[in-house]
Amino acid sequence: MKKVLLYCLLLSPVMASAQQNLVKYVRPIIGTQKMGHTYPGATVPFGAVQLSPDTDTLSYELNGKYNGEVYKYCAGYKYEDKTIVGFSHTHFSGTGHSDLGDFLIMPTQGKLQLNPGIADEPKSGFRSAFSHANETAEAGYYKVKLDDDHITAEMTATNRVGIHQYTFPKSDDSHIILDLMSGIYNYDDKTVWTYVRVVNDTLITGYRQTNGWARTRTVYFAMTFSKPFKAYGQKNFDKTQAYKGFWRKFDQTKNFPEIAGKCIRMYFDFATQEQEKVQIKFALSPVSQENALMNMRTEAQGWDFNKFKTQAQADWNKELNKIKIDAAEDDKVNFYTALYHTFINPTNYSDVNGEYKGLDQGVHKADGFTNYTTFSLWDTYRALHPFFNIMQPSRNNDMVKSMMAHYDQSALKMLPIWSHYANDNWCMSGYHSVSVLADAIIKGVYNGDAQKALDACIMTANHRNYEGIGDYIDRGYIPAERSGTSVSNTLEYAYDDWCIAQIAKKLGRDGVYAQFTKRAGNWKNVFDKSIGFMRPKLADGSFKKEFDALSTHGQGFIEGNTWNYSFFVPQDPSEMIAEMGGAKRVASRLDSLFSMHLPDEFFADTEDITREGIIGGYVHGNEPAHHVAYLYNWVGQPWKTQEKIRMILKMQYKSTPDGLGGNDDCGQMSAWYLFSSLGFYPVAPGSDEYALGSPAVKNAVLSLENGKTFTVEALNQSDKNVYVSKVLLNGKPLNGFKIKHADITNGGKLTFVMTGKIK
Amino acid sequence: MKKVLLYCLLLSPVMASAQQNLVKYVRPIIGTQKMGHTYPGATVPFGAVQLSPDTDTLSYELNGKYNGEVYKYCAGYKYEDKTIVGFSHTHFSGTGHSDLGDFLIMPTQGKLQLNPGIADEPKSGFRSAFSHANETAEAGYYKVKLDDDHITAEMTATNRVGIHQYTFPKSDDSHIILDLMSGIYNYDDKTVWTYVRVVNDTLITGYRQTNGWARTRTVYFAMTFSKPFKAYGQKNFDKTQAYKGFWRKFDQTKNFPEIAGKCIRMYFDFATQEQEKVQIKFALSPVSQENALMNMRTEAQGWDFNKFKTQAQADWNKELNKIKIDAAEDDKVNFYTALYHTFINPTNYSDVNGEYKGLDQGVHKADGFTNYTTFSLWDTYRALHPFFNIMQPSRNNDMVKSMMAHYDQSALKMLPIWSHYANDNWCMSGYHSVSVLADAIIKGVYNGDAQKALDACIMTANHRNYEGIGDYIDRGYIPAERSGTSVSNTLEYAYDDWCIAQIAKKLGRDGVYAQFTKRAGNWKNVFDKSIGFMRPKLADGSFKKEFDALSTHGQGFIEGNTWNYSFFVPQDPSEMIAEMGGAKRVASRLDSLFSMHLPDEFFADTEDITREGIIGGYVHGNEPAHHVAYLYNWVGQPWKTQEKIRMILKMQYKSTPDGLGGNDDCGQMSAWYLFSSLGFYPVAPGSDEYALGSPAVKNAVLSLENGKTFTVEALNQSDKNVYVSKVLLNGKPLNGFKIKHADITNGGKLTFVMTGKIK
Repeated sequence: MKKVLLYCLLLSPVMASAQQNLVKYVRPIIGTQKMGHTYPGATVPFGAVQLSPDTDTLSYELNGKYNGEVYKYCAGYKYEDKTIVGFSHTHFSGTGHSDLGDFLIMPTQGKLQLNPGIADEPKSGFRSAFSHANETAEAGYYKVKLDDDHITAEMTATNRVGIHQYTFPKSDDSHIILDLMSGIYNYDDKTVWTYVRVVNDTLITGYRQTNGWARTRTVYFAMTFSKPFKAYGQKNFDKTQAYKGFWRKFDQTKNFPEIAGKCIRMYFDFATQEQEKVQIKFALSPVSQENALMNMRTEAQGWDFNKFKTQAQADWNKELNKIKIDAAEDDKVNFYTALYHTFINPTNYSDVNGEYKGLDQGVHKADGFTNYTTFSLWDTYRALHPFFNIMQPSRNNDMVKSMMAHYDQSALKMLPIWSHYANDNWCMSGYHSVSVLADAIIKGVYNGDAQKALDACIMTANHRNYEGIGDYIDRGYIPAERSGTSVSNTLEYAYDDWCIAQIAKKLGRDGVYAQFTKRAGNWKNVFDKSIGFMRPKLADGSFKKEFDALSTHGQGFIEGNTWNYSFFVPQDPSEMIAEMGGAKRVASRLDSLFSMHLPDEFFADTEDITREGIIGGYVHGNEPAHHVAYLYNWVGQPWKTQEKIRMILKMQYKSTPDGLGGNDDCGQMSAWYLFSSLGFYPVAPGSDEYALGSPAVKNAVLSLENGKTFTVEALNQSDKNVYVSKVLLNGKPLNGFKIKHADITNGGKLTFVMTGKIK
Repeated sequence: MKKVLLYCLLLSPVMASAQQNLVKYVRPIIGTQKMGHTYPGATVPFGAVQLSPDTDTLSYELNGKYNGEVYKYCAGYKYEDKTIVGFSHTHFSGTGHSDLGDFLIMPTQGKLQLNPGIADEPKSGFRSAFSHANETAEAGYYKVKLDDDHITAEMTATNRVGIHQYTFPKSDDSHIILDLMSGIYNYDDKTVWTYVRVVNDTLITGYRQTNGWARTRTVYFAMTFSKPFKAYGQKNFDKTQAYKGFWRKFDQTKNFPEIAGKCIRMYFDFATQEQEKVQIKFALSPVSQENALMNMRTEAQGWDFNKFKTQAQADWNKELNKIKIDAAEDDKVNFYTALYHTFINPTNYSDVNGEYKGLDQGVHKADGFTNYTTFSLWDTYRALHPFFNIMQPSRNNDMVKSMMAHYDQSALKMLPIWSHYANDNWCMSGYHSVSVLADAIIKGVYNGDAQKALDACIMTANHRNYEGIGDYIDRGYIPAERSGTSVSNTLEYAYDDWCIAQIAKKLGRDGVYAQFTKRAGNWKNVFDKSIGFMRPKLADGSFKKEFDALSTHGQGFIEGNTWNYSFFVPQDPSEMIAEMGGAKRVASRLDSLFSMHLPDEFFADTEDITREGIIGGYVHGNEPAHHVAYLYNWVGQPWKTQEKIRMILKMQYKSTPDGLGGNDDCGQMSAWYLFSSLGFYPVAPGSDEYALGSPAVKNAVLSLENGKTFTVEALNQSDKNVYVSKVLLNGKPLNGFKIKHADITNGGKLTFVMTGKIK
């Protein structure tokens, strides 16, 4: 009997060893409509190049005024749009602010146009109409027909190289435009400088330097065509151009190979036969033109587009096969698209020789690790990095090393807050690097110098002139007079301090442990017991009188109101519950949160999400409450965690372009989906525990880097059977709704017995 | 008897071996008034740093209009001015257009001011009044008292490091301002970007990127103070600043160590005791902040200002001692100041590890040579580089190698025209690199691949879309319709082509020799025999009817009228004379040139020179006629060469601030002085011959790199005895007024017997 069972298991569709075609479940188009802010283009796992269509290149300022529309274009592409401006090489996935969009390429034919034109009149410029019927977006591959000029565009990528293939009609007047001034979240003077060198009739190198969300950012490139161009030229759109003088000796607009300026669009002319394919390989480097060329020559030899596509999809398949699930087809689409979205950011930020640009704007060599960038840490410390500690521990180890390199290069002596491309934009609140470090150290993933990492955490947490930290240290909270986000900052610092304490505890640094454990209790200083909510406190120690618990703006919080933020004590839910008046009262409060009606006026306050991103007053589309549904476990009502989780999974994640209820935030929203679908969640990263919820899969096999597998199975699984009647770990009943990290990494099986009835 | 003579010789003041203090004759202040465009500050021979006071920082555009005044400030300093704005680290010497002026430092005390203020009201800003009475300018050392704040400023330099010493009064409010937006020939948007990193309380690194005469230029720096600052800050003067957002988390104006922007001035606060000296070491690099720091640590250890000064002056003394002269004291001042000015440009452009930024904006390593920049070739091919072939052959060899590296990095595949800091500004006409290459190859100075050098010359000379070369190749001249400088270009190309032919001849490339010898005769195509002048020719082959032989503008010439340019056939004076109607007629024309009256209206046309820069119609302040006085040798009237040379030496070079009659042009004017003072001149660089004139020294001993000495002696020398009655080479009478390059490099003695009577 036993033998037969084992045999069946080996044949089951979730068998760990046999590779499945899971790329077919990935729909990059999910999240491209409304607030998801994902992009549909081609990238490989954690790839440095994200080659994707941009449907508009609106300026941040239009006629000197902030243009609200630009926010929609964080990822360059909106599903709703009817035209494509071109295909650029760098994109964030799911962010709520943006940058990038470097090196826009657009194929055209007929009369050369060097202005993009406007959306309503695609013929007014080089942009083209397109329709979703003629569009294919897959993991590592994107294809679209450009209707205006009857050109089919296809793209794929290697890590550092974008591969384009354009199928032209017969024309003596075919062009490929290289727009060096286009960018995402563009404004006047965002493009600081561009330099282009036409090396020969197939090779171009150069760089683009921007002053955007990343203040001081340069991206170098090397671009090569599969066939020689006939001629080329440029137009400089700078409002003012400095000294010209003897530069006039050349006609620099045509066939002039040394180009520089602020606002440049170039074109390359070809004669094409009917259905002739012109390919481009476009390599990036953070360091130099030479390194870009080296990246291209190392990663992308030859001109076999299908080979590159096949390899990109094989790379994805390899990563996706790390988790094999048995679930409904539509759930598989959601699951593998979420897995795809979690394996995009952070992105590789070093050349094939390990060189990269550091925060100090110097060139460094990553010694023994791969350097990563794009750390949206306020979002991703919660579930993305913990997810990596299970499914991508080597990469997360390197990510922590990248963060430590950032610290070493920081004149401020701070770990990253929100960093990308050798800059910190200090977006959002807290110093959540310390959470990522703590989680990696506590879980044994980080193999670098943990003592030094702890020192970096302490330095960062004691940076008195950073966003109220001085006050926070002196008073235990940030006075409401001094900051518009005094409460959420205090809460987040307190959690982060607890993370630091956990590292100190593990490393035997008792003084540090004591100091930061004390700081971790600072959340109490902004808790108003009289009303049971977190509340802004004034410098004189009294709570601010005027206070609206529903509003997000002006109440001391960021991206959340006190209804959501009052539950933000992930480091000590039990104590929080005690302060709030006990389990019963808190359970009732949680019920209210999920069922209340948030009037439109307050929803309008809440950034980055659609109306669908809210359930009652619970805001899933933003991150601060991501752990909240799991808190029912702490008030003795785990079945409510179970039903809420299943509800959120159904309501907030759909397999449609508008399927994401809020910004995917570099994979944080997707990582929540993955954890919760698998039945557990890291409520407090920095601890080695996971709270159990209600798995949405029937079965999942996680293939770990250590060679072991961890299986989640949900017996009696169905859409109605959302409650968990029993949990077995390796066949033994589990007490309490939590498991340890080692339970996973040791390999084994977690069995949920599902039921449609509460308890 | 013989023995005694030898003994006397060994004791003579021009003895080659004993080092003299020649620095005392150098007056860097010469040329700082009127049109000399030299600077008075501190540099070492061919040093990468030129640390010098700037007396104004006028913008190129003032209220949107070209501000003619800015031209005066090519070297940053005008002797006539009453205030100093600060001390910056890079300056051209003697140019007629400009750039640079990077990293202006100004010490102040009292209330902090971050605007320079205006010249008439020094108290309106951080600039200070000063007087020449309190100013000392020596080779490698500059000192001035800043009257407003009672601060004494002193500076010296190593190759790549500027050394400042400021002596403050007692003050709790002393400041050192670092102005990153100030620059020479400044205009809106010239400063493209600056980045500063305050590493600790004595060390700052960063870079400045400009779009000026050099289109794409970045200079990196490392700066260190001899004592820690108390505090620091910055003000950003950008008209628009892009995204700020979460950057507001910091007060970035004070003690914020990661600074970036377009228009930034920083300050560092100190408390100083009475007469306390605060020193700064400021290192530059073309490559990186890290390399700047390496340059500083390698070249400038410790804080002994006097040691640095002594070393800088010892470096100068070593170079100056290569020529020891016996002459009147005032002539020694002129001679050694000229020698000083010839040993400034081109400047070192590589780090101590050999790395430098190439024309392709990539980092290169100079393999086996020192990389140089600042090639003002239209000027310096004439006498400066030929002078180097005698006195600095190793450096000139490296300069040619630097030019070849430029060619290798050029997407245009051209040798430099006027290059500085990894850019070509293509200033002036011709492709005179080929002259420098030819002179170095013919004279055996270049030890690189001569065949490749010839190929580079051919590529450059065949660049059809560069300034009329296509027409020139097709027709043998540039049609006047196509270019405002059609005649001078044709003449200069023809000379350059002859240079190429000389290389080809030496290398046995017969086809090239024939081709370029033919091109070298193209000067005839713009010679109008009917009037005996060079004249613009139209595309139809007829000479342009409207023509003014006195005017410089709009007549087909650059920086010279046809009276001067018609003699520009240095490659073949004999044939030129024949075409012009023979020796007698040409002699008469030369007489007219030197005696005619050039009406003011035509002088006004003539750029870059003062009225004193003209003798009759002969314009010495510009370069095209620099060889003309020697042409009397070719028409059988060498005594007129002799008297004209002595006249020009007296009239055009004086030991006063206004002593230079025109731009020194990176040493070309000074090199003319040196050659002519020594009695010979390279009329046609690219040949191995020098024409003899009339030496102005009594005796000169040239210590050559090959260990030999070449002595010039002028017997019966006096201000009246300007004529040469006899010339002996190594005691043997010389036939004809010329010597060979080997006559010099073989060592020996050239004796001129002087007389006050013609012949």
